[in-house]
Amino acid sequence: MVNDIANRKARRYGMVIGVKPDKIEEYKRLHDSTWPGVLKKITECNIINYSIYLKELEPGKFYLFSYFEYTGTDFEADMEKMAADTTTQEWWSVTKPCQIPLCGEDSWAMMEEVFHTD
Amino acid sequence: MVNDIANRKARRYGMVIGVKPDKIEEYKRLHDSTWPGVLKKITECNIINYSIYLKELEPGKFYLFSYFEYTGTDFEADMEKMAADTTTQEWWSVTKPCQIPLCGEDSWAMMEEVFHTD
Repeated sequence: MVNDIANRKARRYGMVIGVKPDKIEEYKRLHDSTWPGVLKKITECNIINYSIYLKELEPGKFYLFSYFEYTGTDFEADMEKMAADTTTQEWWSVTKPCQIPLCGEDSWAMMEEVFHTD
Repeated sequence: MVNDIANRKARRYGMVIGVKPDKIEEYKRLHDSTWPGVLKKITECNIINYSIYLKELEPGKFYLFSYFEYTGTDFEADMEKMAADTTTQEWWSVTKPCQIPLCGEDSWAMMEEVFHTD
């Protein structure tokens, strides 16, 4: 749980999505050994310091929370580049079935930042 | 939403707590102008890159998610130092009434990190 972060300017993002109780172990196992091609694309798309957290908020209701920092200049373009990557598409084809998007969402939902201090 | 982060080693923490729907505006207003003494104590306790996010996960169910990095060597001791600070205690006396701890918790609940890439 220790990381070494280089000097940088970053734009922060926090996102959330549900996870199926019977898919949690699979989701954790997948992320314990995330495919190198997926990690490489994340870096190529200027995303750094990317973490995902898991928590049961109510009995049987589990959620995943992601936090990452974006160091590029065109987030939408980089996200399109990531979505166009075949390895990332394969990764999503095994991770998405574990997830339960929030009502009205089709994937991770953006959260509102209400506080930050460096 | 842009921050400038110095080179560092950090230990990451993700936490979650509920927030009362009728207290969200007050919570956001408080954090829009967090007391300088509270921010100073956060820094003195070796916490950096501290963000709080808000999201409605189900109709009428709102949650706060915090992410921060700890650069010290004794987290428990630094948290005790923060809890002993009278300004921080006053701050908590106005922010805690906005919050709804998860079942079985009395404050922010720690989340499990299931993925990280620098």
